[in-house]
Amino acid sequence: MAKVGFIGLGIMGAPMAANLQRGGHQLFLHDRNPVPDALVAAGGKVCHCGEEVARQSEIVIVMVPDTPHVDAVLFADDGVAKGLGAGQIVVDMSSISPLATKEFATRINALGSPYLDAPVSGGEVGAKAASLTIMVGGSQEAFDKVKPLFELMGKNITLVGGNGDGQTTKVANQIIVALNIQAVSEALLFASKAGADPVKVRQALMGGFAASRILEVHGERMIKRTFDPGFRIELHQKDLNLALQGAKALGVSMPHTASAQELMNACAANGMSKLDHSALCRVIELLSGHEIASK
Amino acid sequence: MAKVGFIGLGIMGAPMAANLQRGGHQLFLHDRNPVPDALVAAGGKVCHCGEEVARQSEIVIVMVPDTPHVDAVLFADDGVAKGLGAGQIVVDMSSISPLATKEFATRINALGSPYLDAPVSGGEVGAKAASLTIMVGGSQEAFDKVKPLFELMGKNITLVGGNGDGQTTKVANQIIVALNIQAVSEALLFASKAGADPVKVRQALMGGFAASRILEVHGERMIKRTFDPGFRIELHQKDLNLALQGAKALGVSMPHTASAQELMNACAANGMSKLDHSALCRVIELLSGHEIASK
Repeated sequence: MAKVGFIGLGIMGAPMAANLQRGGHQLFLHDRNPVPDALVAAGGKVCHCGEEVARQSEIVIVMVPDTPHVDAVLFADDGVAKGLGAGQIVVDMSSISPLATKEFATRINALGSPYLDAPVSGGEVGAKAASLTIMVGGSQEAFDKVKPLFELMGKNITLVGGNGDGQTTKVANQIIVALNIQAVSEALLFASKAGADPVKVRQALMGGFAASRILEVHGERMIKRTFDPGFRIELHQKDLNLALQGAKALGVSMPHTASAQELMNACAANGMSKLDHSALCRVIELLSGHEIASK
Repeated sequence: MAKVGFIGLGIMGAPMAANLQRGGHQLFLHDRNPVPDALVAAGGKVCHCGEEVARQSEIVIVMVPDTPHVDAVLFADDGVAKGLGAGQIVVDMSSISPLATKEFATRINALGSPYLDAPVSGGEVGAKAASLTIMVGGSQEAFDKVKPLFELMGKNITLVGGNGDGQTTKVANQIIVALNIQAVSEALLFASKAGADPVKVRQALMGGFAASRILEVHGERMIKRTFDPGFRIELHQKDLNLALQGAKALGVSMPHTASAQELMNACAANGMSKLDHSALCRVIELLSGHEIASK
């Protein structure tokens, strides 16, 4: 049993923390909102700041929305860094900037603490089911120590490389997911407008080179018109922003990622930012005056 | 055993015809180039025009490069239509325009002959291995009659709908394949430039929502730099041209398909039209001054 700090107990963090409790670990909890009752009832101790969490924990997990939040959690006056002693491990499971991550890791390492970036994919469903994909950057030694905790929260757990590589992999994931959604949107809209049944088209394509998880899951959403999230457009906009900021800083040309962000902006402009990202198909549907629909 | 006509005995047609011969069928063969010796040695009869093929066959299969070639094979003065009697089935396995296909089918049907459009995916490897994906448009009755022949050439065989729907599905397939290649290109180039190992990134992504056949096969090609075809860029340009012509005629907006065609034009402009379509990644690599490379 380990003493584990958990900061950020929102839609993702709360079920992840609950899975750690079920694994028998003692949790030290902090959130800017009230800590969920269920986590306290299960034995979690409420802390009033990151420093207080860090003073009591062997491993401190952070799961907050974006880069500035991680910065504040770690380096505010009463932040995690203030309470860290040598050997405690900081694990950031938020999805944030790979470049900022390298800087955060350097600053935490300077205190004698290993740092892992370990963003996840799989959403609320994966967080509850402990089936998250976890993409990790950091040292093998720190990874090995935290791995039993990761295994209580996820299934596909990969140490990709050094600090920042976990976040880089998450950004790569979000690039492919966005572009594959647009690919399926264009293909099914073309087929539907040409008079074919998108249900049959999707089925025929699943056997060949067009096969993807997105065709399987999001293709079905487009046909059945189930745009309740899932993963919201506004969150994917945040992730593509990380990709495009990174591309600018690194000097990489990503024309389709830039265009996909533009199309997501068009979704948001039409009141769809809270819908599932499969609703990206709505933009070209609106422009084409036709919806993907089963015959 | 059926009497089967086969017109178009190129890279794809020759091995497909050979597989029909292995299934015990009598073939009547025509090509504008000399018919391959092996097919004649295996009992195939050489015919001098489409009309001669049609006069002797119960089912006439066409496998030629593009829409104008199918038009000529079917409707030239000595074309297939001249030799057709009621009940013979015409099966076009070329990848051509869905809109032209509907017109061709109407003209063939007017002669009392059913028509199937049945384009394939899987390339030369799939043609030889009899593992092609076959996407069919036409009547259930004609499909049921030709199905034993399809099963000698392919594995995933789907009757998608009426005439044209097979070609529409093939176009949809090529849209998704092109856009998924660009997706993998942008993601792996970003990751590589950010300092992560694309081998590990690809591996981590295969378990989640970014998973696709293209990430698996073409992602590996990008990392290993194996750009020998496979499926050539110039052929994919032809297919995206069908997509964009169709989109214009149908009134469908497909911004990423248009952009992918543009990027393939850039490949061709840089001498890469004979390379595998996974070389699409070369465009953004050139623009970014960095190659996707294993660490």
